[in-house]
Amino acid sequence: MRVGVIGGGQLARMMVPPAIALGLDIRVLAEVEGSSAAIAASAVGDYTDAATVLAFAREVDVVTFDHEHVPQDVLAALVAEGIAVHPKPEALAVAQDKLVMRRRLTRIGAPVPDWAEVGSAAELGAFLEDYGGRAVVKTPRGGYDGKGVRVVETADGADDWFAAGGPLLVEELVDFRREVSQVVARRPSGEVRAWPLVETVQKDGVCSEVFAPAPDAGELPAAAAALAVRIAEELDVTGVLAVELFETADGGLSVNELAMRPHNTGHWTIDGAVTSQFEQHLRAVLDLPLGDTSPTAPWSVMINVLGGPEGQTMPERYPVAMADRPEVKLHSYAKSSRPGRKVGHVTAIGEELDDVLARARAAAAFFEG
Amino acid sequence: MRVGVIGGGQLARMMVPPAIALGLDIRVLAEVEGSSAAIAASAVGDYTDAATVLAFAREVDVVTFDHEHVPQDVLAALVAEGIAVHPKPEALAVAQDKLVMRRRLTRIGAPVPDWAEVGSAAELGAFLEDYGGRAVVKTPRGGYDGKGVRVVETADGADDWFAAGGPLLVEELVDFRREVSQVVARRPSGEVRAWPLVETVQKDGVCSEVFAPAPDAGELPAAAAALAVRIAEELDVTGVLAVELFETADGGLSVNELAMRPHNTGHWTIDGAVTSQFEQHLRAVLDLPLGDTSPTAPWSVMINVLGGPEGQTMPERYPVAMADRPEVKLHSYAKSSRPGRKVGHVTAIGEELDDVLARARAAAAFFEG
Repeated sequence: MRVGVIGGGQLARMMVPPAIALGLDIRVLAEVEGSSAAIAASAVGDYTDAATVLAFAREVDVVTFDHEHVPQDVLAALVAEGIAVHPKPEALAVAQDKLVMRRRLTRIGAPVPDWAEVGSAAELGAFLEDYGGRAVVKTPRGGYDGKGVRVVETADGADDWFAAGGPLLVEELVDFRREVSQVVARRPSGEVRAWPLVETVQKDGVCSEVFAPAPDAGELPAAAAALAVRIAEELDVTGVLAVELFETADGGLSVNELAMRPHNTGHWTIDGAVTSQFEQHLRAVLDLPLGDTSPTAPWSVMINVLGGPEGQTMPERYPVAMADRPEVKLHSYAKSSRPGRKVGHVTAIGEELDDVLARARAAAAFFEG
Repeated sequence: MRVGVIGGGQLARMMVPPAIALGLDIRVLAEVEGSSAAIAASAVGDYTDAATVLAFAREVDVVTFDHEHVPQDVLAALVAEGIAVHPKPEALAVAQDKLVMRRRLTRIGAPVPDWAEVGSAAELGAFLEDYGGRAVVKTPRGGYDGKGVRVVETADGADDWFAAGGPLLVEELVDFRREVSQVVARRPSGEVRAWPLVETVQKDGVCSEVFAPAPDAGELPAAAAALAVRIAEELDVTGVLAVELFETADGGLSVNELAMRPHNTGHWTIDGAVTSQFEQHLRAVLDLPLGDTSPTAPWSVMINVLGGPEGQTMPERYPVAMADRPEVKLHSYAKSSRPGRKVGHVTAIGEELDDVLARARAAAAFFEG
């Protein structure tokens, strides 16, 4: 069974170990030589070029993705040749454009922040007036890790983005207790499995820490899982779907973002769940039965390692980090370091949340810029 | 950090996932194209050819092994160039030749079966006379998975091997309760860590099932760990060392075999221990601090999948096996099937041994020829 992954980032990289375990032939179409997923890169080329992607895709049984940026015309060319693509282009379209996502979620009745499509400073100003003078503006495409997202308080606060063309998404600032994330997987024949709901802590718009399961969550996990499963089914998502959610001040849920691929808030599953999100994604896109999503310990904490300015690599710090924390699992993406860039993560698991968190933070501290 | 592995079998293959997790650059010198470890094979060539091995080794920081068959003159050529080799040639020499191993173990006072070096049918006959008319004869080199091992009852029972030249090892038949295995890892700077002692069940000389930890073992685990650590230190072993042992009828230990590499009796650690033997081997040969060897569940059971005659691959059976046992971890080595050949393994973990064993056997049954 041959799986082709478009994109050579750390998500493709982390699909390789479970592919090796299961004896699957995994191939990556990377953007550049020396990508994070270079070990499986059978081709290097431009994922916006249909001929390049087609040549890659003809050699595999199913095409899937490291990111959501493959253009729809390229995806259409694959489908036209009868190549299996998961998630399907129609589903991916919803993850590719935040305006499309808001429209679809609203149509299926999923809880979302109040939002509007705005095409000018005047329209943005009107929204601000209705929502207390502050709102979140997002570019519909291309944003990630806090990029393309901005809190504005004046109508001219997004003029540079308007000048770049196209409408923007504006949303109310949600009064939330915390951010949580529900990751699920769905296979084409319909089976769906959900991991435990997790709490996520963001720093500067980037996922920093993930606690699995979300502590003191009461009825929230059941509601979140039901919501994510419903979204996966309504949108016909195949593979892993991450639903980033706000737990609102009144204890409800509101959908923040969707990602149709393994997601940072699911990295803890590599070390903390029977089946990792990366193995599950491979199973799902191959339409194989899904694996058990149970946690292997009461608590898991995942902390991202962000690159520092001096270009230090994680392995340089292994002698001290491993000696101090022999039980913490270390993950390096073999990416060159840039300030704030995700270059790896650490995961601790165990019986007591306080202890697990302290151990994960101690390990992560060795890798801080 | 670049690790070079000589040999492209499943042990090299299973070193690749932890190398990816840790961001290490792993390269394999494989015997053939399409080897089990092909995804990391940077070279294909003859490991008995010094020039081939040197060209491979010059590009890495440390050389280690998938098997023990690299000739000493080739190893000496690496050392002469200042290339780090772990385990070192002097240690590996003990694992390469069963007569050398018996001599060394006897010299350090490790418990071993009574044995002798025999050069003729007459000498074998004399040993048989002393040991009740039955004994085990082993070829000193090249044996594995029951090959090169034979129970004989007559002096002419090893004439074919004598005719092939060289002395043979003859050993008493040990009256044992069961077979157990102690896997440890040691790094050049001296740190040693041991996994729990496991019980192994052999079928036709091939490891079939492994129970971790060894049930009802009393004081045995402490004695086995101390013995394995002592062997690792006395022989200056670096990397993973597996000590296959008999639990004798009187409750003692007797060393059966040594392997200086990750070992079949340690495969359970991938899914059942904080640090797998494959990650630990990489840490050890790079002289990095060793990882925690604690089990992640009370019980793990590993069962080998042996190839059937019809050449069926494991993935062909995934639809039924995964649907039936979503919690069992499946490992395929992507090797062509031959009767009796190890083509993969399955591991179940959990709270109750009976349950874990039943689940592992149910999963393994889907892959039986």
